[in-house]
Amino acid sequence: MKNSKNVVIIAGGGKLPGLVFEQLSDAYIVGFEGMECSLTEHAKFHNFNQLGVFFDDLNNRGICHVVMAGNMQRPLLDETKFDEYVKARSQSILSALEQGDDALLTYIVSLFLDESITPIGAHDVVSNLTLQAGVYSGSINQVNLNNIKRADLILEKTSSLDIGQSVVVEAGQALGIETLQGTNQMLANVRDTLRPLRVLGGGVLVKREKIRQDLRVDMPTIGPDTILQAHAAKLAAVVISPEKVIVIDQDECFRLCNELSLSFIVKEREK
Amino acid sequence: MKNSKNVVIIAGGGKLPGLVFEQLSDAYIVGFEGMECSLTEHAKFHNFNQLGVFFDDLNNRGICHVVMAGNMQRPLLDETKFDEYVKARSQSILSALEQGDDALLTYIVSLFLDESITPIGAHDVVSNLTLQAGVYSGSINQVNLNNIKRADLILEKTSSLDIGQSVVVEAGQALGIETLQGTNQMLANVRDTLRPLRVLGGGVLVKREKIRQDLRVDMPTIGPDTILQAHAAKLAAVVISPEKVIVIDQDECFRLCNELSLSFIVKEREK
Repeated sequence: MKNSKNVVIIAGGGKLPGLVFEQLSDAYIVGFEGMECSLTEHAKFHNFNQLGVFFDDLNNRGICHVVMAGNMQRPLLDETKFDEYVKARSQSILSALEQGDDALLTYIVSLFLDESITPIGAHDVVSNLTLQAGVYSGSINQVNLNNIKRADLILEKTSSLDIGQSVVVEAGQALGIETLQGTNQMLANVRDTLRPLRVLGGGVLVKREKIRQDLRVDMPTIGPDTILQAHAAKLAAVVISPEKVIVIDQDECFRLCNELSLSFIVKEREK
Repeated sequence: MKNSKNVVIIAGGGKLPGLVFEQLSDAYIVGFEGMECSLTEHAKFHNFNQLGVFFDDLNNRGICHVVMAGNMQRPLLDETKFDEYVKARSQSILSALEQGDDALLTYIVSLFLDESITPIGAHDVVSNLTLQAGVYSGSINQVNLNNIKRADLILEKTSSLDIGQSVVVEAGQALGIETLQGTNQMLANVRDTLRPLRVLGGGVLVKREKIRQDLRVDMPTIGPDTILQAHAAKLAAVVISPEKVIVIDQDECFRLCNELSLSFIVKEREK
């Protein structure tokens, strides 16, 4: 994208906003008050209670594309601060907040589209964020495959409920199903599981896009932290989908996996 | 049951085995090595690697009924200790262990039935373990009902996968889905969730029987610990199924709920 002056980057936490900004150096950067933002020094901060002010700002700048990048928490609303725009939509905003991430993001995208601002995926701006199918460290053995199959069955069901993107399975047993707290807290919980409940060896973390997930505005993401947490949780493999999961610091991820004897597998869902 | 000499109680951890033993004072008590057992001083201990020895013992005593009571972990097998009985069935035993609790217990029940030993539910021996529908502390409000509905939707899906019996939902978001570690660890994990992710107020713990669960050998169970953990996790209500969830120390549970302003609701699944 040669001219990035008409693009806004909504910047959350982590490395991804910086990578997007490197490619779109003329873009306008927005953070939201009370949420993580890794581009603080470049960002104009808006308040989620005053989306009318936010969209006026974007429209005045002639913005016609939005890139959402990085981890973002759900906004905490304060009714006393609502502007007219939010007041007029408060019922639908509150109801969207009570649904899963996909439903919430679909709603937010609809607000952008109403202003003629279309979303672009971070992975369309930054090349090589995702990976093709393959084994990038270690190997696949039969134990892993059975565990991956069981994990995919669980993800298929939770996916239909718009719940978390990752699952840990060991010896056929679910040790973790991701909820609101995210992948790293789930892995910490697996790590802290009482030793007699574990059958060490062959356990897998499987992380995939949900079935109806809008990949332009939300892609599952892993990075070196995930690898370290999976190792601390004594798992044998990390498994993700080809082309649909962002891997931050890929070389470092592969290096860590090799060093820690963790398999790193990029593979379609098991049927 | 007036004559309990032909009954074996397989005793796990917690209070339930003691309550069953009070009613069946002539019963034979068995614990398994390496697993919790709350009737240690009365129990003969068997080893799961030597089920042939175990069934010979039961048959020699003319046992024709089994009551399984209390928390039990999955057995850790040691191939070097297998007797002929286990050797002959090792493939099916190992495969049962890689499935969910329902599948495993169904398999174990089939082994008892092969020996003409039929299961009796702990709740058929001890009266008043379960509760009828009703509100036993606090009240139902609209927020709770929406959360219960969402929790029941999740339990319906996980149930079909033979995964845990309980779920925590707050403001429409899943904060916990029980896996192998059990209800209390899930609640501890909710308690430790970072404060900005929480929308305090109206959160519910819903615990129910799974759809194909054999209630004669496995019933969901709660007790004062669960109430204390739900309070520590800052939830507003504990919800269970009528007649199908064991509540240990019921008066103490109700007293705690009243003291801690926690609603205690016994209610069929929401549709």
